[in-house]
This record gives sequence, C-alpha cells and structure tokens, in this order.
Amino acid sequence: MRELLDAVADGSLSPAEAEAELKGYVTGDAGRFDAAREHRRGIPEAILAEGKSPEQVVELAETALETTDRALLTRLSDRQIASLESAIGESFPDATVERRSDAALIETPDRERPSLSATIGIVTAGTVDQAVADEAELVCRDAGATIDRVDDVGVAALDRTLDQADRFREADVLIVAAGREGALPTVIAGLVDTPVIGLPVSSGYGYGGDGEAALYGMLQSCTVMSAVNVDAGFVAGGQATLIARTVDSARDRSD
Amino acid sequence: MRELLDAVADGSLSPAEAEAELKGYVTGDAGRFDAAREHRRGIPEAILAEGKSPEQVVELAETALETTDRALLTRLSDRQIASLESAIGESFPDATVERRSDAALIETPDRERPSLSATIGIVTAGTVDQAVADEAELVCRDAGATIDRVDDVGVAALDRTLDQADRFREADVLIVAAGREGALPTVIAGLVDTPVIGLPVSSGYGYGGDGEAALYGMLQSCTVMSAVNVDAGFVAGGQATLIARTVDSARDRSD
Amino acid sequence: MRELLDAVADGSLSPAEAEAELKGYVTGDAGRFDAAREHRRGIPEAILAEGKSPEQVVELAETALETTDRALLTRLSDRQIASLESAIGESFPDATVERRSDAALIETPDRERPSLSATIGIVTAGTVDQAVADEAELVCRDAGATIDRVDDVGVAALDRTLDQADRFREADVLIVAAGREGALPTVIAGLVDTPVIGLPVSSGYGYGGDGEAALYGMLQSCTVMSAVNVDAGFVAGGQATLIARTVDSARDRSD
Amino acid sequence: MRELLDAVADGSLSPAEAEAELKGYVTGDAGRFDAAREHRRGIPEAILAEGKSPEQVVELAETALETTDRALLTRLSDRQIASLESAIGESFPDATVERRSDAALIETPDRERPSLSATIGIVTAGTVDQAVADEAELVCRDAGATIDRVDDVGVAALDRTLDQADRFREADVLIVAAGREGALPTVIAGLVDTPVIGLPVSSGYGYGGDGEAALYGMLQSCTVMSAVNVDAGFVAGGQATLIARTVDSARDRSD
Amino acid sequence: MRELLDAVADGSLSPAEAEAELKGYVTGDAGRFDAAREHRRGIPEAILAEGKSPEQVVELAETALETTDRALLTRLSDRQIASLESAIGESFPDATVERRSDAALIETPDRERPSLSATIGIVTAGTVDQAVADEAELVCRDAGATIDRVDDVGVAALDRTLDQADRFREADVLIVAAGREGALPTVIAGLVDTPVIGLPVSSGYGYGGDGEAALYGMLQSCTVMSAVNVDAGFVAGGQATLIARTVDSARDRSD
Amino acid sequence: MRELLDAVADGSLSPAEAEAELKGYVTGDAGRFDAAREHRRGIPEAILAEGKSPEQVVELAETALETTDRALLTRLSDRQIASLESAIGESFPDATVERRSDAALIETPDRERPSLSATIGIVTAGTVDQAVADEAELVCRDAGATIDRVDDVGVAALDRTLDQADRFREADVLIVAAGREGALPTVIAGLVDTPVIGLPVSSGYGYGGDGEAALYGMLQSCTVMSAVNVDAGFVAGGQATLIARTVDSARDRSD
Amino acid sequence: MRELLDAVADGSLSPAEAEAELKGYVTGDAGRFDAAREHRRGIPEAILAEGKSPEQVVELAETALETTDRALLTRLSDRQIASLESAIGESFPDATVERRSDAALIETPDRERPSLSATIGIVTAGTVDQAVADEAELVCRDAGATIDRVDDVGVAALDRTLDQADRFREADVLIVAAGREGALPTVIAGLVDTPVIGLPVSSGYGYGGDGEAALYGMLQSCTVMSAVNVDAGFVAGGQATLIARTVDSARDRSD
Amino acid sequence: MRELLDAVADGSLSPAEAEAELKGYVTGDAGRFDAAREHRRGIPEAILAEGKSPEQVVELAETALETTDRALLTRLSDRQIASLESAIGESFPDATVERRSDAALIETPDRERPSLSATIGIVTAGTVDQAVADEAELVCRDAGATIDRVDDVGVAALDRTLDQADRFREADVLIVAAGREGALPTVIAGLVDTPVIGLPVSSGYGYGGDGEAALYGMLQSCTVMSAVNVDAGFVAGGQATLIARTVDSARDRSD
Repeated sequence: MRELLDAVADGSLSPAEAEAELKGYVTGDAGRFDAAREHRRGIPEAILAEGKSPEQVVELAETALETTDRALLTRLSDRQIASLESAIGESFPDATVERRSDAALIETPDRERPSLSATIGIVTAGTVDQAVADEAELVCRDAGATIDRVDDVGVAALDRTLDQADRFREADVLIVAAGREGALPTVIAGLVDTPVIGLPVSSGYGYGGDGEAALYGMLQSCTVMSAVNVDAGFVAGGQATLIARTVDSARDRSD
Repeated sequence: MRELLDAVADGSLSPAEAEAELKGYVTGDAGRFDAAREHRRGIPEAILAEGKSPEQVVELAETALETTDRALLTRLSDRQIASLESAIGESFPDATVERRSDAALIETPDRERPSLSATIGIVTAGTVDQAVADEAELVCRDAGATIDRVDDVGVAALDRTLDQADRFREADVLIVAAGREGALPTVIAGLVDTPVIGLPVSSGYGYGGDGEAALYGMLQSCTVMSAVNVDAGFVAGGQATLIARTVDSARDRSD
Repeated sequence: MRELLDAVADGSLSPAEAEAELKGYVTGDAGRFDAAREHRRGIPEAILAEGKSPEQVVELAETALETTDRALLTRLSDRQIASLESAIGESFPDATVERRSDAALIETPDRERPSLSATIGIVTAGTVDQAVADEAELVCRDAGATIDRVDDVGVAALDRTLDQADRFREADVLIVAAGREGALPTVIAGLVDTPVIGLPVSSGYGYGGDGEAALYGMLQSCTVMSAVNVDAGFVAGGQATLIARTVDSARDRSD
Repeated sequence: MRELLDAVADGSLSPAEAEAELKGYVTGDAGRFDAAREHRRGIPEAILAEGKSPEQVVELAETALETTDRALLTRLSDRQIASLESAIGESFPDATVERRSDAALIETPDRERPSLSATIGIVTAGTVDQAVADEAELVCRDAGATIDRVDDVGVAALDRTLDQADRFREADVLIVAAGREGALPTVIAGLVDTPVIGLPVSSGYGYGGDGEAALYGMLQSCTVMSAVNVDAGFVAGGQATLIARTVDSARDRSD
Repeated sequence: MRELLDAVADGSLSPAEAEAELKGYVTGDAGRFDAAREHRRGIPEAILAEGKSPEQVVELAETALETTDRALLTRLSDRQIASLESAIGESFPDATVERRSDAALIETPDRERPSLSATIGIVTAGTVDQAVADEAELVCRDAGATIDRVDDVGVAALDRTLDQADRFREADVLIVAAGREGALPTVIAGLVDTPVIGLPVSSGYGYGGDGEAALYGMLQSCTVMSAVNVDAGFVAGGQATLIARTVDSARDRSD
Repeated sequence: MRELLDAVADGSLSPAEAEAELKGYVTGDAGRFDAAREHRRGIPEAILAEGKSPEQVVELAETALETTDRALLTRLSDRQIASLESAIGESFPDATVERRSDAALIETPDRERPSLSATIGIVTAGTVDQAVADEAELVCRDAGATIDRVDDVGVAALDRTLDQADRFREADVLIVAAGREGALPTVIAGLVDTPVIGLPVSSGYGYGGDGEAALYGMLQSCTVMSAVNVDAGFVAGGQATLIARTVDSARDRSD
Repeated sequence: MRELLDAVADGSLSPAEAEAELKGYVTGDAGRFDAAREHRRGIPEAILAEGKSPEQVVELAETALETTDRALLTRLSDRQIASLESAIGESFPDATVERRSDAALIETPDRERPSLSATIGIVTAGTVDQAVADEAELVCRDAGATIDRVDDVGVAALDRTLDQADRFREADVLIVAAGREGALPTVIAGLVDTPVIGLPVSSGYGYGGDGEAALYGMLQSCTVMSAVNVDAGFVAGGQATLIARTVDSARDRSD
Repeated sequence: MRELLDAVADGSLSPAEAEAELKGYVTGDAGRFDAAREHRRGIPEAILAEGKSPEQVVELAETALETTDRALLTRLSDRQIASLESAIGESFPDATVERRSDAALIETPDRERPSLSATIGIVTAGTVDQAVADEAELVCRDAGATIDRVDDVGVAALDRTLDQADRFREADVLIVAAGREGALPTVIAGLVDTPVIGLPVSSGYGYGGDGEAALYGMLQSCTVMSAVNVDAGFVAGGQATLIARTVDSARDRSD
C-alpha cells in the first residue's frame, strides 16, 4: 500500500492505476471501469459506446488504456469514433487502433497481445450479419486467438455453405451469425462435430423480425448448439475465447 | 323446386340432399354441413373431429356422404374412428375408407374421384411431422392430384435432403412440413424454383416450442415461400390443391 | 475459364461479369450480389434499399445491371431514388426505370423481359395497402406475368368487393393485401376457387396494430389460403410468380 | 331494522333475505352473492360455475333464488347441471329452468320477468360459436329483451350473411360472435348502422388461436364497433341489455 | 345519369360530387374518400392525418367538404393544421372549423348539423387522457349528440369520482377514457346502470405501458362494459353515436 | 463440533438436527431443506407441495419440524393433506396444525411463536382471491404478526370498499389481493397512506386472464404500491412480515 | 370559505392556493395539479416532465410551489431544466433546487423539510442504473428519510456486493436497482433480513431487453421481495418512504 | 455391398445393422433412428420418449442397441421405463442400464465407453433443477467425460455457492442449471474464467414462470455465457461434450 502511494507521489503511477491496483476498478465522471474483470472472468470489460456522450466514451477508453494498456469498444457511432481518434491521438500518441465495423480495439505499445493456438471460426450468412460478427471477432483477436473468418455462406445458396464444410471442421469452436430465419447455424451444426455458438442478428422486418425468429430457431434447433442473445457479438466472442483458451491451455499443459 | 319436392316425396332424394340442393348446406343436431363449399371454393368442407362427440362426428360424416358422396375428416381420436367405422359400416356398407394418421377420407361407390395431372410434392423433416403431412396429403388425394411423398429429409442429415433435389424440382408445387426450428422449407426453397408452401408443425418444447419457431422461421425465410398456420395440414393441402387444379386446367385448356 | 480471362483482358467482359459467371455472385464494397439467384430459385435477388446508403444502393444496382441486365429495388427513400436516377443516368444511359411506390425496376436495352400467359390478380383493401401491393406487382411484372390490379375494395364497402368477384375468378392466382383486421383475403377466398396469397400490411395503431391482427387473421382464416409476412410484398410477388410460371409452362408443355 | 328482525323471528323472512336486505349481499360457505348488483348495475350477478364444486354451485343458486327470485348460471358442466336440477327440484319445486348450452336461468314463480320493447340481434358465424352466444342470449332473456337470433352466417358463405342484412338493420343492438379470424362482425358492421358488439370466441388452433386473432381483428376493425373479451358471453349480453334498456326507457319516457 | 352529366357540364356539380353520387366514393391523388360511408354505416369516414403529407390532408378534406359538406379529421400535427387552415380559408372561405386537441371538424354553411336528444357522457381520468377523449367527443358533436364532459376524475382521488355519480347516471351512454392501469371505467361501471364504453389511452411507461394494461383491465373488468382499442377515440365516439342515435329514434318513434 | 457428535451419539440430537447445526441445511431423499433460511433472511423456507409426492411432502415437513420446530407448507392437495395429517399424527403426536385453504402451519410444542405488535392488513376483492390471501396470512401468522383480515370488498360494490377505509389506515402494511382487472389495490392505495403490497390472483378467462391483467394493472397503478408475482401469496406474506418486524423492532428499540 | 375569499381579495392568498384549499387540486392550462395528494396518500404528486412542453413544466412547477411550497419533477430533459431554472429564478427567487440526474426537487424557504429517523438503503448494480435510483432517492429525500446510497455493486464483481452486506442489514428498507438480468436484488435479499424493493432498469438490448428480463427475474426471485415497474424510480422511492414513515412513527409512538 | 448382403444372409448382420451401414439410418414402425448421427455430429441421436407409446420406445431403443451398441433415452415416464426394462431384459439380457431421473443410458457389453480427460462441471441451484441436469449429465457420461456434479448451491444461500468456486474453476466447461429467476449461472460466471453454458429450468409459477425468466436472465446476463433452451438438458450436455472432446483431443495432439 505504502509502495503504491509512493509511486503515485513520485508520478510513476497515475491515481487511476493506483485505484485499479487497490480496488480492482476505477470510478470517474463517466462511470466505473472494472480493470480487474479480465483477471477474474478471463474477458476484459468492453466499453459499450451506445447511449454515452463522446466525452464519456473518451474518458472510459483512456481509463482502460491507463490501467490495462488497451481499450475494447463496441457500438461506436461515427461521431464517437471521430472524438475518440482525436483524443487518443493526443493522450496516447503511440497507441494503435484496430477497427471492425462499429467496434474498436486500442492498444498502447506496452501491451503484448497474447497468442492462442486454438482457432475460432467466425461465419456469417449475409452482408447484414457482418457488423455483429466483427464485434465478436475483435473480442477474439484481443485475446490472441487464431481466427478463420468465412463470410456470405447463407443457406439461400447452399452450395457455398457446403463448400466450406472442411474449414468449419478444422476450427476448435465456431461462431455462426445469422438473421432472418437464422437457419445457417443449424445447417452447419448438422455437418460438423465442432461446438457451434449461434449468434442471432437483428435483421428482418415484419413478424419475428429484429432477430426474434433467428433466436427462436437457434434455441429450437434440431441439432446441438448453444446461443447468445440477439446482436450480442461481444458475448459470442467472449464465450468462444473462453473455450479457445481452455483448449489452448490443454495443449500447453500436455506439452 | 317442385321436382325436388316430388323426389323427396317418392323417396328418390333424402331431405338432406334436398336441403343441400336448395340452400347449399344441411343443418342437423351436430351443426351445419356446407355441401356447396367445394363448388364455391374448390375445396370441400372438412369435418374437424376435435372437440366433437363420436355421435356428432358420425352424423356429420353421414350428411357429407349423403350430399356429396364422400366425407373428409381430420383430427380423429381412436374412439371417434371406431364409432365412425362401425356406424358407416351399417349406413353406407359399400363405402371405402382411406386413413392417414388421424385423418380419413370416406367415399361411396357413387363418387368418381377426379384425376389431376399436376404433381404435389409433400415433404417432411422428421417422424413427428408425418401426421400433419398426412392430413395435407389426404386433401390432395381427395382432389385427385398426383402425390410425391418424401419423408425424413430434415436438415440434421443434409445429404439426404440434397439427394432429393431433383424430385423436389419435378413437382408442380411443394408442401414442406417441419417443426422445431423449421429450417427445411427454407433449405429446399433455396434449391429449386418450385412454389413452396411452408407447413409448421407443433413439435419442440421450451421457448418457441409448439411450432412457434417454425412459423416465425418460415415467415422470415430468406427465400421466397408462403406459409400456413401451425399444424394446418388441411389448409396446406387445400392451397396446394387449388394451385394443382389451376396448373391442370392450364394444361387442359392448352390441349 | 481461359476464355473468360481472355474476355476480361480484352475488355469484352467486365470483372464483375466474369466473377458472376465463375462464382455465381459478385462481391463489392456494398456487399454481395447473388447473380445466379434467379437461375436457381426462379426469382432474382432484389436489392433491399432500407438501411443502406445511397452509394451502396447505386453500387449494388450497377452490379445487378452489369451481370443480369436489370435491377429490382425495394423500400427506396426519396433520397436514394434521386441518387440512383442520377448515377444510372450516367453509367447506363439507355436503361429504363419503372417505378411503383418505393420499388423500382431498372432494365438495360439488352434485357428481353419474358412474357407469361398466366394472370396474377393483385387486390388491395385501401389506399394504405397500395405501396406494399406495388412492390409485389413489380416483382410479377419483372417476370412478365399478366397483372390484373384491383384497388380499394375493402370490406367496409362490401358491394365494391362483390362487384369484382368475376375478375377475381379469372386470375390464375391472387395476391390480396390488407391491413387493420385483414378480413379482405378471407372474404375473397370464400367467393372464388382461385389460390389466394394473403399479404398483411402494417397499418393500424393500438393493440394488434402494425399488421399483427391482419397476419393473425390470415393464418386463422376460416377458408383456405396461405400467407406471407407483414409488408412482405416482394415475397408475395415472388410466390405468385413461381405459381404463374408453373401454370405458364403447363400450358406450353401441353401445346 | 326492527321490522326485518321481527320478520326473521316469525319466519316470514329467511336470514339470507334479511342479510341481503340489510347489507346488499349474502355470505355463505360457497362465497358471497351480491344480491344488490342488479339494482346498482342493472345486470344481476351471474354464478360462474367453472372451478366450483356442485355443492357450491347449488348453494349459490339457492341463495340467489331466495334473495332475488332467480339464479343465472354460466359455464356449467354436465355434473353440475345434474346436481343443480336435483337439488333445486327439492328446495324450489315450483322453479322453472331455462337452459342454453352450458348456461341456465332458474326462476321461482314469484319472479315476474320484465319485458323490453327493444330488440337485441344475436348472430353467430358457425356452430362452434353457439354456446358463447347462448350465454349472451340468456342474460338478455333474463332482462326481458326481444331476441332475434341468426345462426351460421359466417363469411365463408357470404351470400347467407348478405341475405340477413335487413334483419341486422332492424335490431336495436347486435351481438356478433365469431372465432378463428373473426371477420363476421366487421362485415356486418360495414353493412348496417346498428351498434355492433363484437364477441370473440376461443376457436381455432395454431398461432392466434383460442380467440386471439378474433379479438385482435375486432379491436383493429376498419369499421366502428366495440368488443368484449374472448368467450365473454355474459359481458356481451349484459352490455347489450344495458343498451336495450336505455332504448326501452327512451321509448317509455317519450310516450 | 344524364342529369348528373348535364350538371357537371353546366358547372352546377363538380366532377367529385358526380363521382360520389354515382359510385359512393371519390378517388384522388391522396387516395379514396368514401362519401357514402355515413349513409351506410351511420358514421362518416374520418380522415386520419397521421402519416399523410399536408397536401394529402388538404386534398382529402376538400373532397369531403365538396361531397358531404363537412370534413372530420383526426391526429393532425401542428403543421398539418396550419396548411389546412390556410388552404380551406381560400377554397371554402365560409367554412367553420371546430378543433379539439388534434382533431378537427370543418363544416360548410350548407351543412345543417343534426340534433340528438340523447346524452353521451365523456369522462377522463387525467390530463393525459384528454386528447383521445376530445377525438371521441368531436365525432359525437358532429352527429349532434348532447355531450356531458367530465374531466380529471381518476381513482387516485376517489372522492371526485364519486361526486359525479349522478351525472354519470343521467347519460344515455358513457365513454370513459383512462390510461395507466385503466381502473376508472371499472369503478364507474360498478356505480351506475348506464352502458359504459371503455377507451384505453396509451400512457404509462414500463411493462404494460402504452395502454396495454388499461386495455387488459377493461377486457377483464369485473363489471359489465365493452371496450375499443387503445387510443381509438374515433371508434369510441362512433359507437356511442350509434347508440345515441338508436335511443334518439326510439324517442321519436314513440312520440 | 465434538459436542454435537457426542449429542448425536447419546441420542439427544438427531442426525438431521446435527447437520442443520453444522451446515445450515439438511439433505434427504425428497431434496434439501434450508433450516437456516429464517435466521439469514427472516422468513423460513416454505415447503411448496405442488409437484411433490405425498411421501416427499411428509419427509420435508418432518425435517422442518425436527430442525426448526415447525413446518410451513403451501399449495397442498387434499391427498397430500391427508397423508401429512396421518404421518405427523404418528411422528409428532403433540404437534398442532393450523390450516388456511391449501396452506398449513404445523408446530411442535417446543415452538414458541413470536409476537409482533405491528398489524398487517390482508384484503381480498372476492371469494376467488381468498386462497391466495390465506397463504399470505399463514406466513404472517407464523411470524406472530397481528392480522386484520378484510374480505370481499372488491370495487364492483364500491361502498363496501369505502366503509373499510379506516381499518386500512390503521394497519402498518396492507396486502391487497385481487384478480380479473385488479383495480382494488389501486383504489385502496389512493385512499390511505399505508404501504400497499399488490397481490395479483390468477382468476379471469380470455385475454389478460390468469392474473396477467391484474399484475399489469398493479405495475401501472397511478398510485404508489409495489407488487409480487401472480398467486405469490407466500412472497406477499413474507414481504409484509419483514416490514412488520422492522416496525416492531423500531418500537422496541425506542422503548 | 368567506375567510378564504377575503384572503384572496386582500392578496394574502393566491387564487391557486384558494382553489387548492377548497378543492384539493388546481387546474391550469397545463393540466391539473393534485395539491392534496400528499395529505391523502403520504406521497406528493410528482410532475412527470416527459411529453410536456417546457412551458407546461414551468406552470405545473409554479403551481406546486405556490400550493405546497415545493415541486418534485421527474424525467426532465436538458431543455426543460434550463427553462425551469430560468423561470423559477424569477418567480421564486429564494427557492432552492436539488437535482439528481433528470429529477429535481425545488423548495421555497417556507418549506420545512421533515426528518425521518428511518434509513432507506438505495443500491445500484451499475452506472446505467444510477439515474433511475436518483429519481427514487429524491422522493425519499423530499420526505426527510435518511439515505444510505451504495453504487456499483453488481454481481459481476461479487466481492464488492458482499463487502456491503452489513450496510444493507442496517437499513430499514432497501431499494435495489438493476437492469440486464436483474440478479442483484435477489442476491442481496438472500443475504439480509431487510425488506427489499426491486427496481428493474431498462438497460440491455436483444431479447428480454429494456428491463423485461430484470422485471421477470424480480417477480420470479427465489427469495422474498416485492417489485415495481421498469424504471419506476418514483414508485420505488414512494413505497420506501411509506415504509420508512411507518417505521419512524412506530419509534415515535413508543417513545 | 455384396459383403453386407452375405452377412445378412448368413445371419451375422441383422437387417437393421445392414441398413444403418448402407444408409446411415434405420426406419421402423416407430420412426427413423439416425445411426450415423454420432459419427457426423459427435453426439448420438437420443430417443425422446415423451409422446411415444411404450412399444415405440422399446422398438427405437432396440434399433439403437443393435446398430450403435447403446441407446440414450430422455423424458421417460415410469410406465415407459417398466416396459423398457422388461423388453430389454429379454432382447439384450447382457445390457446394462444407467438411469438418472427420467433419462437412461443402455449399453451392450460390446460397447466400449470412451474416456475423456476433460472435466465437465454440472451445477444445480435447487432440487427442482436436478432432473434436467441429470439428463445433461447422462449425455456427458455416455461420451466418457469426467463429471464434477455440484448440487443445491442456489444464490438464496450464497455462502454455499462461494464455497465451491474452486471446483468451478477446475472444470474445463460448466453447465449451470437454474429455474425461477435463473441468477446462479450469472453469479458463477462472474467468479470464474471457465466457459459457462446456462441451462434454464421450467420451474416457477406466475409471470415469467416455466423457465421464461431464467432464459431471459441468461440471455441478458451481465457476464459472458451462452445458453440453451428451457429444460434442454440433452442440448446442454451435448454442447459441453463437444467442447470437452475438443479440449481432450488438444491434449492428445500435443502429447
């Protein structure tokens, strides 16, 4: 404790870092950031940008960078992205930004991204499913997993789905994103013995639209799979990461 | 009018037949039978046995036989079937009975079943979908359509689905029955350019069970198809029949 | 393969056309266009403009024109229409544009629109149902079907409905669009022996509004009909087209 | 007060009658009977038999007879009917029983049924709607209204509906009972300027079954009408009675 | 027919009036106006302004004025009102406008508003219910009914509800508008023997908000009443008018 | 620990009592009984009889009696009651049983029921609400609260509700049970400044039946109250008890 | 009465104060303000700003200040806040404003805020729950309760929840606000014997979002608690206040 | 092929085994058994006993034993169990039966159960969740996974949950079964970095009962997890098995 305070006193530790060290989280004007989440749960806290002002997003991202050397952000608007890039450009000029649709991963040079031998397959049915799959992918990349991304293989053109069966089989775990009637994860899970995480996407209008039919279909699937909530790319990516890390450490332990 | 009354008087016409002739329908203790339905709508009135006493079912079947030379019954319980067979055996000893699961078609020798050149494909995903498909099939058989029945080709074993693609293409119209997540009609409709009528089946427990996920999935399908209500085998069969008859008369007219 | 590459090299084939030829679809910045859909499913891929930027709509339309000689677009906003007309005016100056409410069909002079002898009746209950019916109609026109359009015959003025019964009977298949309580398809299907496709429309406020009561009513209809999802004009038009084409080829085959 | 107690003491008034006189209601083992309901609300309290033992039904019926000279019962099972007829036969040997489906009205000779000049039209779409309509009718008969009952005029055979338009117009108020898609009240209300009370009936299976589609359709009707809950025959009959009585007293007052 | 055409030719009849006379309705750019609705159904067609451009609203209002001497408009925005007043000021300079919240009734001097002896009580629970009640009231005023309006008597201050019981009793029919839990119509219907039409209002946030709890409560009410859909002021007013007119003509007939 | 084992060894403590002492709960064939629940949460674990065999109910009741000197049981069927009385009569011959509808409280002579000065008012709208209110009441009685029970004061006879206002005011907390539209808690909460806990009851058929409308109405109430789930008499009683005990100890502490 | 009028005449009483004195409420252009609500129900009427113009909010706030010396406002937008501060600054220059998120309490110097000895614990799961908890808190502060606010103790970091168990135990009543899956109130209610009021918050996207899962979870909680509607901070605060005041007066009475 | 037919001819292969070898599945009177499912999907087809006659269950079990040396059955009634044990006792006298609640695994001596090094933790909240967890467990045992079962650690007694945190951490994957509000998987997933599969159980009455609140809560969980449908023990066990096998083969491959 004394050490920490000394470090804060001599400037080698910021107050936020010290608070994170002591309590596990940091509280600022924009709310709380749970710096210890990754340690405890294996998945870092992501900053959900939706419903926050650009200033709040920037503050939380900076706290994340200060205490964990990187920030993972989801559902960013164009305006939030612009503020973020400008602010981080000043406060963390050496940080790198990786964007996927409306998600972003910012890392300081201090961060050493881990590397997992396990492969996560990420599959989309159509163009409209890509943003949600991108959010899942960024979570997996942050954890250092190997990614095999397969886009646009919806069942309306079944040949293309079948052509990829071997790639599906080679993954350690699959995330399959689909909207409308959400049949793709069922079709894929019927073809391979890889664990499948169904990720319903809020496309489609009319009855059962906005992902409802897709979620229902994945919960009722005549094959074995589990599912996450509609548009919950972060959760699908997190769950796949936890599985990939378990696989990875099984390999390591047995070495 | 006078002719009819004379016929009733001399016993060559039953009162029910006369009422059907004059008003189009017959009213008895068990309710009304719409004898003119087939003429008007192209599809005969079926007797929905569910919720009726065996006596009511028998009375309605006899009225149907008397006025239209055949009776089409759906959702028969074992007890209703037994009463029916025994009663009809006495009142219409020459009638023939064709059963499919809990549906039955009874015909007097006077009835000349029509014959349609058009083919209706009827496809099921699994064992649990067969009773509903049987109800649809009997409606189509009553109309004299050619039936191509393909069972047990659900997407959990996709090879078997794909193996039948050519048969699906040769039909003039397809009825595809599926429960659980109801992906089969979507997969088939993506393979062929035949009109598909989706028939959701009330299988599955938990959320979206009892056919709800299947119906939602057919309404949200990423390919083109129309749907009928959950377990509505009669409606699917009727709609396919109307299409088949249109196709049939197109052939005839162009001869 | 070599031939195609030669054609691309000498400029007689665009890269998009070559990709479509080889893979069946074309992938650009705005997503994927499935050029082989029509061949496989009988119905071309329509470009759903809703949720896309004007630039994306233009790009997809141009890809469609390049590879299939026409583009079918639905749910266009005024701003998207303006961009589209201006862009296509330059890139395909000889193309013709046919608009119906917020749907559009663009064709290059190379396209020879097919002609089907079968007649599709398209019926609306009221003014509010016309845009959805227009979307259905454009799909049918693209396929060359004969259209018999009957507007404003909702059951609140039943005489007008009944006056058209003969026209309803003459069609090979009927699309009946209705919002609010959606009684019109039931009333029409009770009058004629033509196949009816119910098309619920998202009008009405309060409980069961936005097309829910209409869809429920069509699924529960006491007569025989099938239904598509709320506002799914494209699907209704596509299903009617598939039926019309089956009828048409029955006529041809029997010639 | 003293008078009442004297009457109880000398046996000319039963304790139940005295309690009803003093407090407006009577409390027994089977629950409370609100003897003053009719005076206050214009409609007597009906005894809902469903979920009660035959003994409870008998006790409540006897209390009703004792304090209001008649008992109105709804949703009676066959077993409850048998108990009731046997018990009342002993306790009120002179009472008369009028049954309609599973509703019953029992009256002692002391009761003088009122007579209303106003006419209530009660219309059903099909056989399955008759029991609920019967419940409504018995409430109206209890109040002495003139009833014009028209059965089996559902829209699947529209001519029969139209044939009755003049009878519909002559009623002062119409109750229209319909299940499935519930289109009949909308069709009738579009034909006549009589107030229509929609009474949805819990028929139909699958999605929107059990009266849900019918209720939704009546609430969304494109014409003017009000509705009661699914199967609420008592409420529809009560509301029609209140209107009929208002009409009746308007006639009287103006005499 | 010839007469009409002569009248159009000499300018004494507008083309719209002639079309209305011949067909019962008039079709313009903004859709169809059903000029014969009032005659057939007793309630004129109201122009639902929501979702229409100011130009469409003006066109429909002018058609209504031309063919029926008045226009009834509901759900007008401020911008639509402004356009309307300016346009009508020019085309029908002598017309009078009566506004209630976002509803309006415009009449030409040629219109002679009828007068009904029957009284319609219109009651609101709170401030938020007034706009919907105003819509109902304007329909009743258009028909010439006597109105007794009682505002702000919600059950949170029950004394004020009870204080008005006598006024409630004197009405021939009551419309009771309430949002949130919608208890007011139940409380009033328990106090008086007047027919009550429950009018649920879309207030309230959270679960059961937007009028759902209010509608459910009115359908489940432990007293006798009928209901209309959420916010359906026009329907409630129309139904009350039909009842009032029946009462009124009962008085007249008996004179 | 040693002490406990000695006590078990010499028979002065049963094994179940020892397990409860050590772990807080006891596990038998019929499942786990949480003997420490009352200490931790202030409310004992009740034995939900529904879905259990009579033997399981008896075993759990005996465990409860052995470890906490009393057993609180809810949703008992007649058959379960009979088994229970017979078994307890043998195993705990001195125990007393207090029944309220389908709930029961069994106490050994060792139990000294506490006494709370605070008063809990328990109010029902009608006969049908009494069983659920009885379940709540027994929980409160078990805790020794003073109970003021007021039955049959539903809003359909509002005078009776108003007559009891002073009793409602004198309670420290009120539980108000109501089914159908559930208006009673709203009406009472508008009259008094006592905390009200709404207890919706699963009565009513049709839309919003089975307590749904009542729950919605309590959540949307225009006055201040909290609610528990439909038929959750135990929860309502428990919550009232926790409040009563807080009030009681406030009195004690201030003595 | 005469006294009041004299006071109005000589200006010592405003007309609004006089109306409030006589009728209990004041009616202005912006609607009705129920000045007697607090006296009757123990909780003042709050002004729900949502859906009102800034002018209406100001008018109602001024009426509240005039008649009850303070105004409690909820769901204020930034624009409404600005208008309010400017207007009150002029009309009540000595008033003090206490803001919590989008709720505000304005008091004139004449108001003597009461003081309650009872403590209300207000707990939030995360940052997103704070605004709703703030609304609840302001209601409790207005009543003078002692508040113990504990933020950011959601179950994702369970240690922090457990660390606060003693503070939870010391409160007389707890409000626990949580969105998403809403597990926090269940976890806390399992730890302490304090009454818990669950306050679901409308966070979360996808299925069960907007507070639905949280509300369901609180109604189904395996421990004892009651709940209010989603986002109903005012109701939770009001209910806690009623309990706190009962506790407080128990202490006083026993002094 | 010839070899197979020879084997059938000489009796060394049953017709069912031959059909399974050739087509992958066997079709009998009781429906189809997919003998190749395990090979393709990694999880064998389970026989869902619910809704089947005892004879059908026996037939399907015998087919499974004949073609895959074991049968996995779920949702068995007592009557089905009895038939099964008696029939298998005769046809496969050496088979062993392992039962867990209403699931059973029957194996012939020919079957060599595999062995997986990976550990699957299976956790239940309460007694009511055990049958569903047992179904999941049997699927995992069939695959040879190491099982760590932890029962009765629901959050109502949080200490017991926390006491097991280390066991939870040691598993490679966790299935957490919970009904009512379903908070347990959220609490556990917040404590450990193991992948968690939420398994909602259909306990709880009232709103959100039958597992709905539990499913919603798992989909909305503030931590990372995936979920399966309500009561879908087989699916949860299958998904955990697929993960365990991936982990297992990772260990093997790295050896």
